[in-house]
Amino acid sequence: MATKDPSISRFPVPSLRDMPTDIRARIEAVQEKVGFIPNVFVVLAHRPEEFRAFFAYHDALMDRPGNLTKAEREMIVVATSSMNQCHYCVVAHGAILRIRAKDPLIADQIAINFRKADITDRQKAMLDFAMKVSQSAHLVGDAELDALRTHGFDEEDAWDIAAIAAFFALSNRLANVTNMRPNREFYSMGRG
Amino acid sequence: MATKDPSISRFPVPSLRDMPTDIRARIEAVQEKVGFIPNVFVVLAHRPEEFRAFFAYHDALMDRPGNLTKAEREMIVVATSSMNQCHYCVVAHGAILRIRAKDPLIADQIAINFRKADITDRQKAMLDFAMKVSQSAHLVGDAELDALRTHGFDEEDAWDIAAIAAFFALSNRLANVTNMRPNREFYSMGRG
Amino acid sequence: MATKDPSISRFPVPSLRDMPTDIRARIEAVQEKVGFIPNVFVVLAHRPEEFRAFFAYHDALMDRPGNLTKAEREMIVVATSSMNQCHYCVVAHGAILRIRAKDPLIADQIAINFRKADITDRQKAMLDFAMKVSQSAHLVGDAELDALRTHGFDEEDAWDIAAIAAFFALSNRLANVTNMRPNREFYSMGRG
Amino acid sequence: MATKDPSISRFPVPSLRDMPTDIRARIEAVQEKVGFIPNVFVVLAHRPEEFRAFFAYHDALMDRPGNLTKAEREMIVVATSSMNQCHYCVVAHGAILRIRAKDPLIADQIAINFRKADITDRQKAMLDFAMKVSQSAHLVGDAELDALRTHGFDEEDAWDIAAIAAFFALSNRLANVTNMRPNREFYSMGRG
Amino acid sequence: MATKDPSISRFPVPSLRDMPTDIRARIEAVQEKVGFIPNVFVVLAHRPEEFRAFFAYHDALMDRPGNLTKAEREMIVVATSSMNQCHYCVVAHGAILRIRAKDPLIADQIAINFRKADITDRQKAMLDFAMKVSQSAHLVGDAELDALRTHGFDEEDAWDIAAIAAFFALSNRLANVTNMRPNREFYSMGRG
Amino acid sequence: MATKDPSISRFPVPSLRDMPTDIRARIEAVQEKVGFIPNVFVVLAHRPEEFRAFFAYHDALMDRPGNLTKAEREMIVVATSSMNQCHYCVVAHGAILRIRAKDPLIADQIAINFRKADITDRQKAMLDFAMKVSQSAHLVGDAELDALRTHGFDEEDAWDIAAIAAFFALSNRLANVTNMRPNREFYSMGRG
Repeated sequence: MATKDPSISRFPVPSLRDMPTDIRARIEAVQEKVGFIPNVFVVLAHRPEEFRAFFAYHDALMDRPGNLTKAEREMIVVATSSMNQCHYCVVAHGAILRIRAKDPLIADQIAINFRKADITDRQKAMLDFAMKVSQSAHLVGDAELDALRTHGFDEEDAWDIAAIAAFFALSNRLANVTNMRPNREFYSMGRG
Repeated sequence: MATKDPSISRFPVPSLRDMPTDIRARIEAVQEKVGFIPNVFVVLAHRPEEFRAFFAYHDALMDRPGNLTKAEREMIVVATSSMNQCHYCVVAHGAILRIRAKDPLIADQIAINFRKADITDRQKAMLDFAMKVSQSAHLVGDAELDALRTHGFDEEDAWDIAAIAAFFALSNRLANVTNMRPNREFYSMGRG
Repeated sequence: MATKDPSISRFPVPSLRDMPTDIRARIEAVQEKVGFIPNVFVVLAHRPEEFRAFFAYHDALMDRPGNLTKAEREMIVVATSSMNQCHYCVVAHGAILRIRAKDPLIADQIAINFRKADITDRQKAMLDFAMKVSQSAHLVGDAELDALRTHGFDEEDAWDIAAIAAFFALSNRLANVTNMRPNREFYSMGRG
Repeated sequence: MATKDPSISRFPVPSLRDMPTDIRARIEAVQEKVGFIPNVFVVLAHRPEEFRAFFAYHDALMDRPGNLTKAEREMIVVATSSMNQCHYCVVAHGAILRIRAKDPLIADQIAINFRKADITDRQKAMLDFAMKVSQSAHLVGDAELDALRTHGFDEEDAWDIAAIAAFFALSNRLANVTNMRPNREFYSMGRG
Repeated sequence: MATKDPSISRFPVPSLRDMPTDIRARIEAVQEKVGFIPNVFVVLAHRPEEFRAFFAYHDALMDRPGNLTKAEREMIVVATSSMNQCHYCVVAHGAILRIRAKDPLIADQIAINFRKADITDRQKAMLDFAMKVSQSAHLVGDAELDALRTHGFDEEDAWDIAAIAAFFALSNRLANVTNMRPNREFYSMGRG
Repeated sequence: MATKDPSISRFPVPSLRDMPTDIRARIEAVQEKVGFIPNVFVVLAHRPEEFRAFFAYHDALMDRPGNLTKAEREMIVVATSSMNQCHYCVVAHGAILRIRAKDPLIADQIAINFRKADITDRQKAMLDFAMKVSQSAHLVGDAELDALRTHGFDEEDAWDIAAIAAFFALSNRLANVTNMRPNREFYSMGRG
């Protein structure tokens, strides 16, 4: 049975046992791995088909082999989600970024102003591009792609950066409208 | 073999025979139905996993039963894509909107300024909400949901509107970065 | 006698026979040429003196000999009017642009995002300048004029581009406030 | 013969004796009345047809009988021209406003922030509407017209306010692009 | 002797022993209390007179008795500094807010989107006002003051909120231009 | 006893005899020098500690020896205060700028659009930097400092420009919230 829990979502949240088997299985696997169920899973489980597409898309982008490290992919998430003022994504992906980068300070730095963060110039160029995709994609043209290339990013890297920024444009809007709230655990993960 | 065709995409575009079977099958089904292959399919086929997630998500939102008509779903796409200056989405979904609404004028009206379009007040309220999700989702709160309710939209409708606006926030960014270009056919479809 | 017809204007609209002779003559000449009376004429005829000045200004800019083609002048109108979300100007001048350029696709392309349109680099530079005049003229200085010159535009061309962008800054505001609505015929003209 | 004088315009400025007779006559009449030739006349005389249309439009709006006083018309000019950062218009029309209102302080107050100026609530409502027309006319609808009515402005007043704001949207852009510069006399007129 | 240390400031940073006695004394008192020297003290000590005025102002606002709690004052700092993308202020005052509020989550919540934070409606009204002062003070008028009053804030509270937002408008700009960087300790303080 | 005088401030204004001795002494010294009491003194005297810090900071920045002339410091105040639509600061510091620069036109020119003012290219570069600090300090980085250097500004000059722009970011917000109004005398000072 679905209930409403404003500490998780503005919309109804299904109980685990009412979820389709595949969705429950995915959630239980995550729970086993991280020790709790990140709220994004139960919030989106309200709509099973959308849940499946969302996480398939997420995994295709975030777990894909390529030149971007997993930490760099999370940098894109944190920088663009902060610009979009997305409570859930900044807190949860901030935690993941700290862990992936093995750096307790980096998520706060990138969330506040990536231009001042302790990252490489190449990473700043990556985030410049990601921010432009996130905030004014209609202006992206040859000049932006060329700027990426001068920092050693090839065409596939450009697609990766753009697609992650675009996917979290979707994700941030869902989280903001649903009032999706991060689990308490995320705030402190990776700060140790 | 993938080739580059700037009239379709800035990125490599695979040939049909090189695509995974399921993707080729989906594309051939569309081709049979509409008479040509909309470019979005070949542009996104460059990344098969992302292709599958993208269209699964698209179908989950646009073909879902619910209170919003198919034409109303396309109104959301056209209004938000125009604000994001997305060449592909405004032209292609403008065509679909004309057909779904059986109205040759409506897509241009909504693309330019939905406040002046020949639509109902309820539909304007729907687009007001969609635009806020598209452009400033961090400001969406109780007041916006309440405004929808006064026009007869329930909670599930609100999710539908928000999710469509959010999905095309993703889609518009991909199309703008890839320089995805609409097929010539779309410009005149449904104007007859 | 003036009546109100919300399908044309929010303000009173005079009947042809009540208009001053010169205004009626101009309108009948247009009607004979294009086959119908574009609504802008009857909307502005509410104020005869302003009507005369408006069309004298319009003709001085749009019919003037010079290096800009008539199609290029209409490109400026469509690009800037779209940024200003002017229902009447985008639809009506979109039709004129299609006819002048003998290109059924160009108006939609320029209205959505001129950077992605099938036009020359020189024409994109022209529209870059026109958009800056339209949206932030206080920032126009030597650098903008120099950029035009590198594309072969001379000083008189710069005046032409700026003056057309400026005139439609006026026109778009009048059309938006009066709720001026385009005649149905414009939507399909030049698409054949 | 036309010359260039950067203290007046970035474009060529014709000499009085080279101007068409009607334009020279108008300029000489102004000169006789105010004691000097305001630069806008010589800057725009570079294009005689546009000059005639510009001043015909200007006079139709600024000298028209109606409920708005001449000082109120100038308030609209100063407030919107300041928002558009138009050097010529703020200085020259600031002078005219001081004279028309017989108030040496009012022009500076309105140019800086009309919300803090020593004017009536009705005049602030007039300027609120004018600013919306000037900066975001695509959002003007019934609500804005209704707000005017509660302050006693009728439909014709609304047209006047909108048309003046729209005309100076044109004028400010021309002045900014031409680098039109105000005569020294304007700075101190009406301050005595 | 002053040295340059980009991990602290883009500008020269004086050594403790070269500082005027009063400034050194203040810094040593802080060091004794918090266990380290917050970088803002050494960055601003580059200009002793400005240092004295800055901290006198800071203390006058942040230590003043009144209806706002110390935690609420820090909420204003964190919310407005985050909007201004001030690395130093968000990290350092985020720490102070966590400690003052005895809440390890509140600073991240307010920095990302105060509308979604676990705070009272009264505190959200306080932050609404503070953000308006921070981002568009020229629009603050009776309506904003009235809104505060409905939440129980009196005139002196309004001054406090406005003055804190205004002071950190100054502080954020100094920190951004100097590249002032927070001490490592701040990131984790109060999270325990 | 404090009274309310809306021609000076929205907040209570203390009488001279009720002010602390040091504050009264400072105000009487100003009065003797300029012939009247500028309203900023009585408005801020409502909060004596903040008054002392405010003027200590002001004097540290505006009276400091350095490469910037006193007139140039006032240019920064007028340009940034105008962008922030601060009635008091533009009028009062406009007067001071006219006097310091011995130029009756310069304040109006800089308030409206400093790019069109009769100042040197070096001064325009100074104001470009000041405006960036005032409006988007989070974007200030090496490029902005380098641009200053090409016009002969050293590191200490950069601090001066930034600190003045930052201090008036504070000052403009206080003046806007308190409805601080300039004395009548300021409007005409230095225009003679």
